[in-house]
Order: sequence, then structure tokens, then C-alpha cells
Amino acid sequence: MGTNRLESFSDGVIAVAITLLVLGIGIPSPLKHGNLGHQLGHQWPEYAAYVVSFVTIGIIWINHHAMISRLKRADHSILILNLLLLMTIGLLPFATGVMAAYLRAPSGQSLAAAVYSGSFLLMSVAFASLNRHLLLRRSHMLSEELGLQERRRILARSVTGVFPYLVATILAVVSAYATLAICAALAIFYALPIASGSDRRG
Amino acid sequence: MGTNRLESFSDGVIAVAITLLVLGIGIPSPLKHGNLGHQLGHQWPEYAAYVVSFVTIGIIWINHHAMISRLKRADHSILILNLLLLMTIGLLPFATGVMAAYLRAPSGQSLAAAVYSGSFLLMSVAFASLNRHLLLRRSHMLSEELGLQERRRILARSVTGVFPYLVATILAVVSAYATLAICAALAIFYALPIASGSDRRG
Amino acid sequence: MGTNRLESFSDGVIAVAITLLVLGIGIPSPLKHGNLGHQLGHQWPEYAAYVVSFVTIGIIWINHHAMISRLKRADHSILILNLLLLMTIGLLPFATGVMAAYLRAPSGQSLAAAVYSGSFLLMSVAFASLNRHLLLRRSHMLSEELGLQERRRILARSVTGVFPYLVATILAVVSAYATLAICAALAIFYALPIASGSDRRG
Amino acid sequence: MGTNRLESFSDGVIAVAITLLVLGIGIPSPLKHGNLGHQLGHQWPEYAAYVVSFVTIGIIWINHHAMISRLKRADHSILILNLLLLMTIGLLPFATGVMAAYLRAPSGQSLAAAVYSGSFLLMSVAFASLNRHLLLRRSHMLSEELGLQERRRILARSVTGVFPYLVATILAVVSAYATLAICAALAIFYALPIASGSDRRG
Repeated sequence: MGTNRLESFSDGVIAVAITLLVLGIGIPSPLKHGNLGHQLGHQWPEYAAYVVSFVTIGIIWINHHAMISRLKRADHSILILNLLLLMTIGLLPFATGVMAAYLRAPSGQSLAAAVYSGSFLLMSVAFASLNRHLLLRRSHMLSEELGLQERRRILARSVTGVFPYLVATILAVVSAYATLAICAALAIFYALPIASGSDRRG
Repeated sequence: MGTNRLESFSDGVIAVAITLLVLGIGIPSPLKHGNLGHQLGHQWPEYAAYVVSFVTIGIIWINHHAMISRLKRADHSILILNLLLLMTIGLLPFATGVMAAYLRAPSGQSLAAAVYSGSFLLMSVAFASLNRHLLLRRSHMLSEELGLQERRRILARSVTGVFPYLVATILAVVSAYATLAICAALAIFYALPIASGSDRRG
Repeated sequence: MGTNRLESFSDGVIAVAITLLVLGIGIPSPLKHGNLGHQLGHQWPEYAAYVVSFVTIGIIWINHHAMISRLKRADHSILILNLLLLMTIGLLPFATGVMAAYLRAPSGQSLAAAVYSGSFLLMSVAFASLNRHLLLRRSHMLSEELGLQERRRILARSVTGVFPYLVATILAVVSAYATLAICAALAIFYALPIASGSDRRG
Repeated sequence: MGTNRLESFSDGVIAVAITLLVLGIGIPSPLKHGNLGHQLGHQWPEYAAYVVSFVTIGIIWINHHAMISRLKRADHSILILNLLLLMTIGLLPFATGVMAAYLRAPSGQSLAAAVYSGSFLLMSVAFASLNRHLLLRRSHMLSEELGLQERRRILARSVTGVFPYLVATILAVVSAYATLAICAALAIFYALPIASGSDRRG
């Protein structure tokens, strides 16, 4: 099977997940106590979580594109591993909502932050697993002949991307803000031109 | 009419349905009694139902892809049967939500489980009906000449896929957990490499 | 501009709208009075409205496909009229929700039914307007030379499709059930093979 | 990288965002005080905000299409700037909801209107920034040779589109209705045939 419909289905799931993030930003109600300005200001964790998640999902989309574009065709195992990756992306509106709801709560911030960056961690593990499968087990399905060393180099980049999220998840014990800051810094880092080389190659 | 836009519309509906599943996982509230860890742990049926439904819809997408790729063009009857299949897929966020809400409720678990696997049953019946129509009534629209025996063999696989969900639905009377376990086992089975042969051929 | 991206954007909007319909089917809560069976049975208007709306949107998608496939390219006026058509389709999850909520309410059924079929009426008027624009004002953009008589014949079919929804909307004064029944009958009629000729040609 | 998947992902996000707008129109409840007619009439700000936002997003889609169609291929910087544009579009269901909720509230209208047109302002700034990047910094990636003067002329149109939203946002201090009226007038203006020249060229 070709990779066209795999791409179009993945694009669809990622596009829906990224757009559903907005549902996590509550619309203040005129019936509640507190004026609108106060209510809007009070929900800044929702904006922060929205922006960080939106950019992170956008970057995983760019990387996904680069990963699949290396592929000539797909088999059952690739479709299933890709499905697992999409499942972790599909969870992000939930994880983002938990983070936004608890960042300023009297308790539960650490766990919420761990859920948040833990979801990114899960996503990066799923990404690296699929990439590993493609580069080492399905190298005959790549559209272009790549030497083992080159393939290992690409894979190393995917695997390296897992660690910052592991650190962010562990640091949630110390401070939910630290976790959010690391996730934000990662989103900015990957968005910068300097990261484009690795992004383009997944 | 060609099958391109049929595929792209079906991809869209399936991608939205699979991503809407996440709305079934409630975001705990800091205002509710019970800490976050307790609340997150308490809603494990929502995670289980999410994972099982996500993988099941993903597999029906793979099978749908294989089924339509056999087709050269589509007529009105194919579009309508495909629409009915999409309608059953579109119901799954509802059925998944019912299952998640009632799995640990003091009453209603059996009915909720019957609604859950009954929806998968409906989906597999709609899938087999469309496949039967394509293979027996619209064989002149297939992109590749397939002998009657080969077509019957492919169809038999689709029809066979109906029975486990029938069993799961009946077993809901005994235990909602049994139903969920069967649906989970089916998702795992179809995801395994061993099932790829039948999956690839729908 | 070609019609490819017009089709893909329209497919996207229609696919999302048709899948959002499921959000109109409430998930019963174990905390409410009444057992699950009773609650599920009580919300049959939600299932009925879901099925009728799903099939109706599906048929408008089929007709939209046929309409656009006649087109070689699109200009600004076509994009805007198509956008207005999509806007009426985008309203259907709301109209379907109103119908479902009020069909068995002590008051408001007639108005709810008028909102429901009135939305289908709006959609069919937007469809006929776009079709009229394409066939009479932009006939030089059609992919295939069609005589004026043939174009008038195709257009007449679109315009004819407006009247049943006008009747259904007026009959809402008498009975909301009558309105729902007419909308259901229309969905079935257009889904039947006998209607395929007109459907295929929009 | 080609622009195909960039287009398909952008189409997906815009299609989901435009269709999610309908969730901002509340479905009246038979249990609330006030009959259905009264409730439907009372929520006219939700319809107005829906229509204005739908048409505005639709027009940005048309302009986005024109902008990307000038492009031969995309690099990392283009993908990231496009992602930021999509992020502002993704916020519109939230901004539309705030506007609808507060237009007739005893307080907060001005701020709500500022949030509303401020979101359109943000979107038009993101659009102009991406267009500037493409036309001045990535002119070697354009599919067609365009002189500096022609490129500056196209860009000037994008930049000009920013100012009316700036005015609308400032006028929110005076009256939320004035802001809504300006946003509505802009949507109508861009939808008119007279605006097609500039729209087609972004």
C-alpha cells in the first residue's frame, strides 16, 4: 500500500487534535462572580498550555511528514505503529486540559504536570519506535537508499528527543512550573531555524 | 465517479470520530472532592474504553482502505452503503462514553457493555454488507479481475469478523468486563502481524 | 484556481459537521434518577435526529461532489457561494440538537421542528443558488460543454429539492412529528437507487 | 518539501476550526425558564458572531490558498510561520464564544469585543508576516518569477488588511456593537466580487 492515504489520515487526526485544544480554554460566563477581565486573566494557564501544546503538535506533524516522506510504501506493522503514535497525539487535548486545570490549584499540580509532559514523553517514544521500525526493520521500504550509518544517525535524533520530556516529567515532582517551562522551551527550540536540520530529517 | 473523494471524505469522518474519543475522558476538576490522583485512577474505564475504541476504529480504517483500494470507481449504491458504515463509526464516541460511564456503576453495566460491543457489531455488519455489495454485485467495478472463489474468500473474512462482536454483545448479560475484555482482545489480535494477511485484504 | 483544494476544504467541513452530530446524543449519567435502559429509551429523538441528519448531510455531500466535478476551475464568486453553503451545513449540529431536545417537550416542538427543517431548507436553497450560478453564470467554467437545455434540466432538479423542505417547515405548525417524518422520508428517498440518477447529476 | 501536505494540513485545521464554531451556539433547554422562541431570540449574538466568524475564516482560507499556491516548495521557517497562523485561527472558536457570551451582558462587552476583533487582528498580523516572509525572504521558492515591485504590491494588500481590525479593536472601548459591525462589514466587503482581485492575490 502506498503512503498517500496513510498521510491523509494522519494529517486528519493531527489536525483535529490540534484544533480541539481550543475547547480546553473555557469561555467565561457573565453569570459567574468576577468581571470578565479578572476571569480572562485568571485562566492564563489555559492559554499557556494551549500555545505549548499547539506548537508541540505542530512540530510533531512536521517531523511526521519528514519521517513518512522517506517511505515508499507501508505494511500492516507500519500502519499499527503509526496508529499508536496517533493515539498518543489524540490524548493531548486531555493532558493539556488537566495541566491547565491544576497549574494553580492548591493541590495536584505536580501530578498534572507529570500527566502533561508524560503525554509528550509517550508521544516521543511512539515516534521514535515507529522511526526505529522504519529505519532498521523496514529499510527496504524507504524511497531512497540510506546507509546503515545514516539511518542510525537519523534514529539517534529521534531517540534524543525523548530525554528532555523524561527530565520534564521527573522535574514535575519539584515544580509544575518547571515542567511547563521545559516543554515551552522545547517547543521554541524545535521551532527555531537552528533546529530545522534535525526536524527535516526526523 | 472515481474513488478519490470517497476515500478523502471517509478518511475525514473516521479521523474526526477517532479524535473525538478523547472528549469522553473527563478532565478532573480541582473543585471536586478527592485529590487528582484519586480522580485520575477512578476514571480508568475511560482510558480502557478510549484505547480499545481508538485501536478498533484504526483497524476498521485500515480495512476500509484495503476494501476501497480494490475499487476502480463508485456508484450511488456504494456511496450510500459507505455512508451507513460511516454512520456506525460516527456513533462510537457515544457508545464509548456510555461504556466508560457505566462500567463501574452500581447498575446498568450490562446494558452499557451491550451498547458498546453492539455498536462494534453494527459497524462490522455495515462493513461486511458494503464488502459483499462490492465483491458480488459490483465485481465489474473492481480494479483487478478477481475470480468468484477469491472474492468469496475475501468476503468470508469480513463476515467472520462479525461473530466475535456478536458473542461479546451476548456475554454482556454475564459481565460487562467480559465484553470489554473480548473487544480489547479483538483489537490486539487484529493489530498483531499475524492478522495482517486478512487485514490487508479486508 | 483549480477545484482540488475547494473540494478538499468542503470535504473537511462536511466531514467534521457530520461527525459532530454525535455530540448531540447525550451520554446518560449513572448519577441521574432512572436506570440506563429508561434513559437510553427516553432519548430516542436524539437517535432519530442523528440518523436523519447524518444521511441528509451525506446526500448533500454526494450531490456536492457531483456539482463540483462538473467544474473545471473556480473563481471568487464560486468560493463565496460555496462558503455560504458550507455555513448552512455547519449549522446542522445545532439545528439537530434543538430538534432532539424539544421533540417530546411540553412546548416548543413546532418551533424546534421549524428550526430543524428550516435549516435543511436553507441548505437546499444555498445549494440551488450555487448550482444556478455555476450552470447559468459560469457555464464557461464547466469541464464539459453542456447545452442550455441540459443545464436548465440539472438546475430544475436542484430547485425541485427545495420544495419538500418548505412543506416540511410549514407543516411544523401542525406537528413536529410530521416534519421529522418528511425529513426522514426525503433522506430515504434520496438514498434509494431510484434517486441515483438525479443525485449523480445534482 | 512540497506544499501538498502543508496545504492539506492547513485545510484540515481551518475546516475543523470553522466547523467547531457551531459549538458556540447553545442548544436551549426545555428545562430552563422561558419558552423556546424567547430563548432562541435571546441568543442572537451567538448567530451574529457565528456568521461573521464563519465568513471571516472562510475568506482567510481563500487568501491562504492564494498565498500558498504561489509557492513551489516550503522550508522549516515557512512551516513554523504557517503553524503560528493556524494557531491564531484555532483560537477563533474561543474568541467567538467570548463575544457571543458578553455582547448583551451588563458588563464586559468592551473587553469581549476587544478579544474578538483582537483575535482577527492577531490572525491578520500572522498572515501578513507569513506573506512577507514568502515574498521578501523566500522569493526563490515562489513558483513564478515575480518582480520586487509586484511582490511589494501583493504584500501591501496583506498589510493593509491589518488596519481595519486594529481600528475595530480600539473602537471596542466605545461600543462592542461598533466592533461587531466593523468585523461584519469587513467580512461582507471581502466576500463581494469587488474584493476578488485582492483576495485572489492575497
